[in-house]
Amino acid sequence: MVSDLLSPVAAGTAAEEATSGEAWLRALVDAEAALARAQARLGMVPGGVADAIAGAHVDLADLAVRARGAGNPVVPLVADLRKVAGEHVHRGATSQDIMDTAAMLVADRTRRIILADLARTLDGLAGLARRHRETPMAGRTFGQQAVPTTFGLRAAGWLTAVAQARDALAGVRLPAQLGGAAGTLAAFGGTRLLPVFAEETGLAEAVLPWHTLRAPVAELGAALALVTGALGKFATDVVVLAQTELGEVVEPAAPGRGGSSAMPHKRNPVLATMIRSAALRVPAYAQILFQSQAAGLERPAGEWHAEWLPLNDSLRLTGGAAETAAELAGGLEVHPDRMRENLRDELLSEHVAAALAEHSGREDAGKAVAAALREGRPLSDLVPGGVDPADVVGCAPELVDRALAAYEGRETG
Amino acid sequence: MVSDLLSPVAAGTAAEEATSGEAWLRALVDAEAALARAQARLGMVPGGVADAIAGAHVDLADLAVRARGAGNPVVPLVADLRKVAGEHVHRGATSQDIMDTAAMLVADRTRRIILADLARTLDGLAGLARRHRETPMAGRTFGQQAVPTTFGLRAAGWLTAVAQARDALAGVRLPAQLGGAAGTLAAFGGTRLLPVFAEETGLAEAVLPWHTLRAPVAELGAALALVTGALGKFATDVVVLAQTELGEVVEPAAPGRGGSSAMPHKRNPVLATMIRSAALRVPAYAQILFQSQAAGLERPAGEWHAEWLPLNDSLRLTGGAAETAAELAGGLEVHPDRMRENLRDELLSEHVAAALAEHSGREDAGKAVAAALREGRPLSDLVPGGVDPADVVGCAPELVDRALAAYEGRETG
Amino acid sequence: MVSDLLSPVAAGTAAEEATSGEAWLRALVDAEAALARAQARLGMVPGGVADAIAGAHVDLADLAVRARGAGNPVVPLVADLRKVAGEHVHRGATSQDIMDTAAMLVADRTRRIILADLARTLDGLAGLARRHRETPMAGRTFGQQAVPTTFGLRAAGWLTAVAQARDALAGVRLPAQLGGAAGTLAAFGGTRLLPVFAEETGLAEAVLPWHTLRAPVAELGAALALVTGALGKFATDVVVLAQTELGEVVEPAAPGRGGSSAMPHKRNPVLATMIRSAALRVPAYAQILFQSQAAGLERPAGEWHAEWLPLNDSLRLTGGAAETAAELAGGLEVHPDRMRENLRDELLSEHVAAALAEHSGREDAGKAVAAALREGRPLSDLVPGGVDPADVVGCAPELVDRALAAYEGRETG
Amino acid sequence: MVSDLLSPVAAGTAAEEATSGEAWLRALVDAEAALARAQARLGMVPGGVADAIAGAHVDLADLAVRARGAGNPVVPLVADLRKVAGEHVHRGATSQDIMDTAAMLVADRTRRIILADLARTLDGLAGLARRHRETPMAGRTFGQQAVPTTFGLRAAGWLTAVAQARDALAGVRLPAQLGGAAGTLAAFGGTRLLPVFAEETGLAEAVLPWHTLRAPVAELGAALALVTGALGKFATDVVVLAQTELGEVVEPAAPGRGGSSAMPHKRNPVLATMIRSAALRVPAYAQILFQSQAAGLERPAGEWHAEWLPLNDSLRLTGGAAETAAELAGGLEVHPDRMRENLRDELLSEHVAAALAEHSGREDAGKAVAAALREGRPLSDLVPGGVDPADVVGCAPELVDRALAAYEGRETG
Repeated sequence: MVSDLLSPVAAGTAAEEATSGEAWLRALVDAEAALARAQARLGMVPGGVADAIAGAHVDLADLAVRARGAGNPVVPLVADLRKVAGEHVHRGATSQDIMDTAAMLVADRTRRIILADLARTLDGLAGLARRHRETPMAGRTFGQQAVPTTFGLRAAGWLTAVAQARDALAGVRLPAQLGGAAGTLAAFGGTRLLPVFAEETGLAEAVLPWHTLRAPVAELGAALALVTGALGKFATDVVVLAQTELGEVVEPAAPGRGGSSAMPHKRNPVLATMIRSAALRVPAYAQILFQSQAAGLERPAGEWHAEWLPLNDSLRLTGGAAETAAELAGGLEVHPDRMRENLRDELLSEHVAAALAEHSGREDAGKAVAAALREGRPLSDLVPGGVDPADVVGCAPELVDRALAAYEGRETG
Repeated sequence: MVSDLLSPVAAGTAAEEATSGEAWLRALVDAEAALARAQARLGMVPGGVADAIAGAHVDLADLAVRARGAGNPVVPLVADLRKVAGEHVHRGATSQDIMDTAAMLVADRTRRIILADLARTLDGLAGLARRHRETPMAGRTFGQQAVPTTFGLRAAGWLTAVAQARDALAGVRLPAQLGGAAGTLAAFGGTRLLPVFAEETGLAEAVLPWHTLRAPVAELGAALALVTGALGKFATDVVVLAQTELGEVVEPAAPGRGGSSAMPHKRNPVLATMIRSAALRVPAYAQILFQSQAAGLERPAGEWHAEWLPLNDSLRLTGGAAETAAELAGGLEVHPDRMRENLRDELLSEHVAAALAEHSGREDAGKAVAAALREGRPLSDLVPGGVDPADVVGCAPELVDRALAAYEGRETG
Repeated sequence: MVSDLLSPVAAGTAAEEATSGEAWLRALVDAEAALARAQARLGMVPGGVADAIAGAHVDLADLAVRARGAGNPVVPLVADLRKVAGEHVHRGATSQDIMDTAAMLVADRTRRIILADLARTLDGLAGLARRHRETPMAGRTFGQQAVPTTFGLRAAGWLTAVAQARDALAGVRLPAQLGGAAGTLAAFGGTRLLPVFAEETGLAEAVLPWHTLRAPVAELGAALALVTGALGKFATDVVVLAQTELGEVVEPAAPGRGGSSAMPHKRNPVLATMIRSAALRVPAYAQILFQSQAAGLERPAGEWHAEWLPLNDSLRLTGGAAETAAELAGGLEVHPDRMRENLRDELLSEHVAAALAEHSGREDAGKAVAAALREGRPLSDLVPGGVDPADVVGCAPELVDRALAAYEGRETG
Repeated sequence: MVSDLLSPVAAGTAAEEATSGEAWLRALVDAEAALARAQARLGMVPGGVADAIAGAHVDLADLAVRARGAGNPVVPLVADLRKVAGEHVHRGATSQDIMDTAAMLVADRTRRIILADLARTLDGLAGLARRHRETPMAGRTFGQQAVPTTFGLRAAGWLTAVAQARDALAGVRLPAQLGGAAGTLAAFGGTRLLPVFAEETGLAEAVLPWHTLRAPVAELGAALALVTGALGKFATDVVVLAQTELGEVVEPAAPGRGGSSAMPHKRNPVLATMIRSAALRVPAYAQILFQSQAAGLERPAGEWHAEWLPLNDSLRLTGGAAETAAELAGGLEVHPDRMRENLRDELLSEHVAAALAEHSGREDAGKAVAAALREGRPLSDLVPGGVDPADVVGCAPELVDRALAAYEGRETG
């Protein structure tokens, strides 16, 4: 396998390998072998077929080109496998049974990798939330300093979003596909093959053959878009906070990382950039998968075929993003000093206005604050004894505790 | 409210009304009133504020234009409400608290309508599956007759897909939003307001303010795309089966429905067409909602604002599609005679080849079938005693039972 | 017409009115009247029909709901018009002839508004480029200061992008649609009606009826996405440069603009936010329009109907964005002092490394720069006589001249 | 290069090779060599650099993984090239200069292939239009027989759509990118390098460095979506007309093509299916490219990186679709006999109603037609002397002539 030159976010990652052409070929062969094992258990085919299938050598490059004949790689694969394992290969099945089951196997295998990387990411984010529970920094809306918050609350937000998306992904049911030519199991002699085949693949058993009921694919695509969305939120915040003028966080250093071909001083937020590059693509792939649901009859002429690449790219890019996020979360440099320096007096406007309103009413308080802002006088002076922005972080620490409790309850629950 | 001339699928439906400008205004006012009630319960504002808010008259047309000042309608709404209900209105809150809570109220109210229409749709589909459990028809792949199936299995497929999508939609958690200026609850004096506010709105309580953790919106959009996808599958099949040359189903008749402005003979599948028009749009709206997750800091400059219209259109179009689907499922005319007539002998190729292979091996069987196809001889003659396509529906009836059992278990479970 | 509460970017704008239900109804009636005028010119219908059509009153609210019967508003419209203008109304035409022609009329009318607003925007941007041709500021990549540039070059970039998108939009050909029931003109008695109808509508004449050749709609959608993309680039830059910590630009002030419901000090970049809200949606709408091209036969069951809303929203939001951008470009406050203050010494790394390399080779130069960066010594000290970032803006002024020359050549050419 | 197992539409095609990792590596090296040649012409670097670059061996697999360091493959590529070609490699340039120029080279090279395949497709479609100018068949709307048309008019529609899309693709300007670190050409010593570099690459010269003015990429994506849309229309029609019950066209036969793994009788429309699989994906990729326009400052952290894969997939899939379409258009089997048989009497409703209305008025005519339809009497009997659907094709032949004239004028013009 050669990594994709155009997707650095996934290059060299375990998810890239789990979604490679080789991995798909393995999954296709595994699906045929599982079918033969299941049928052998029910006495429908002889015992040795599955082993012969599993041991077959198939040429990936050749197979990919021959896939043009029938529009999918299963037809030439079956021809190859029958040469070595005999005519019982693929018995009663249709191409889509094998292709869909293989897709679920690839999804299942890649999902394990993604979930492990998300667990590492969550661990890193929980650490950040815990350590910076009370680290004051500017809350910013529309790019403008708004009111103080803590870095821990921001990290708790990342944690909460990623955990929710992780749960969504973990919860997607990945069923084996078996229906035969048009989903009636006509050539299988009964529905009893369904649970046995599912068991042999290690996948879930569907109520019905789902060849044109594409919820498993659409739900998987949606969950992956939720994951890259949550990781993308984390990454976007890192890019913004790492801006030269803010300097509140810096990506973990590594030899050669974040360098520029032109400017020796640059230390670009390259991990966050790569994560964002995934987050900006996966939603469009999910859209294709959603769209394919509305296709006609027992096998559509195109909608099914259109799913394979965006589904696989979604798995691959999400996997790359998750591995990258684990590294980013685990090693993010946080600069409380810069956060502190950046806090502007004007951040106090809501607090000071509220404090003054206690005594003089909202209208007069508003006028006093507006006058100070206009004249450039510090707002903190308006309050007897002054006020430090770092003391006005509201319930941020308490909210961090809520997020950590929810996260820990989830992990142990 | 004037219906949207460009969205007949939703025109005049309950979902259209529940997503109208008037409904949003009501939800915005309800959110402010709920905040005042919650704060009154905790002694933070006087008791009469909520009632004054609820009784206020606000001009929708005027509000929509004034929304340009701050980029959202809450700022001018608060100004209007304070005129009649005093300065305690919106105390400690930020615009997004009210806008997001209103969005969830609109979503919650529209979802009830959608779920009721989906229940009606499911009921109709279950009836079709039950009645046509054994009605033979051609299974078709790539537009080609493949092997026989039953209409009941097709309807069971629609049932299963819609039920799964319905469950996804019903399961989306819709939380109230409350965080104040940047999500720290600084002006609310504690997190104790969170559960009380959620209770007053009737919405769920979030672990954290979710102003920039957009999973609730993204998950809702995804679930709506699953619903329109499942309904779209049903609708596409109806369009295909209703083709002049197939004529296997016909949409329920109604005065003036399906007419053409040019051709008196036409009876267009207009219900299915309208459902499909929704299914072809909602995935793109979901894509926008997925994309908005990755926005920066405590309130982004655009991503949040970009959500409102696609979220609302998704609710509206899904609602229109669900109401339309209920009518289509409840009244679909099925023509078993046409299904029977359409069954071609060539459909038997898999069955005959398998039957022959029992005795003469797969290779010889294949040759015999190929020869008969080439020479135009009926395949059914190759099998001693002949075979009727209607007898080769495999496990279709049994699969219908599985689907109905799953559906009924779900409804009563 | 009541403005859309959920689209402040377009609320109250001329484009909103030009894309309203009322505007569509007018366009539909205009299309029927143009057909009657064209047919009268050729002696196919009596002379007074068009006037009777033009004078008819049609109830928009009622029409929208009745559109459900046939899936489009033309069928009930024709019924209404025939009551007042007789049976020659809509003679030989099909609903799609009128709906598509009306869509092109709405597009043509809204495009005029958009192009005028883009002209104002371009004028503002050209002024910024000219005035700030040599105003030094930090060039930033990945959010990090990179090398110096000028604000004029940035504005010249906005100018060039918007001008290119404007040209694309202006160049889209908007044809009248006339084909009859299935595009054969069977009930019109000849192709000679095509140019006359086009002339009466003021639209272009197509080679063929384009009822299922949807390039006009897809190209229009693409051009609108190019426009909002270019305006979105401008808006995103404004949001970034207006961040509290950068403060290099500020949006034009206006009473009540950019205020926050919670924080008196806020002056949010609300114009840019609204423009971005459009730029984040229109690409998804274009996607729907692209997708609809691949529909089957002489009129698809859904793909056509799915176009109307995203096309109209694209026109409306692009129009809102253009009007908003004209105001932003015309009134943007630029702060050269802040730009100057923000320039960091590290920006010089490329320049200093290159200067040193002239004498000591690239490798030694790199080491010297790296050492200075590591030790926090100013890079400018490494060069004899020092160097001011403002003097290292490369060809920025010259590039501004190229952009202005191209823009002015285009305007006068 | 191993073909993509998941994209049969492009597997083994010339476009697949032109968009492979190897092709990108070649284009990257070509871009560096062109820069060195251009700089040598202006005396900025020694003469032999370009040749040394061109002769360098770079390991693709290794490069792809090392691309993670900087987020793009140019940084490690430059390191490799400098080892063999010295420190003048990449002088003054930034990674994006090389990556964008390489993208345009890949686009330019793939576009040539696509345009040649589109020319072959157009030739095939023009032949179909010409040969079947008067071949009667049913025009169908909403899947229902509507009025008669000719197969030639349908083919003329495909021709016109593909030709328009082809023109759009051919017209996209593909410029070289050169700007240096932040687009000021600071390290190049003047703008005079721009035309020389463009000339050396064979690409167009841009007015400004377009590193964040992404119209070239967005316009290219849009044009590719127009092409796959037009090809998709052709393919969808083929799938629909090839349905078992219609049988009006059949895909060109080839050994092993269109086979099923389960059903020996199947001859699936696999070419059309593969084309549609592209048409269903490319619009979503275009959406990503549109979205990336609105990114901030001189190089965004993610939007640029998100472009590479969807742009390349769009080129690859469009190329695969075009090559497939050329084969489909060149060899499509047309069955005028089946078209004739399929024509239903009810198709005459518009014609008969109009004919009767000449004498008895529209209302009475409508009643007579409705009665005949209700009672199942042939409509053709209502007209004195009867009428044959084949005689009611309106201006279809004349419209074919218009389309052919426009096409031929374009080719020779």
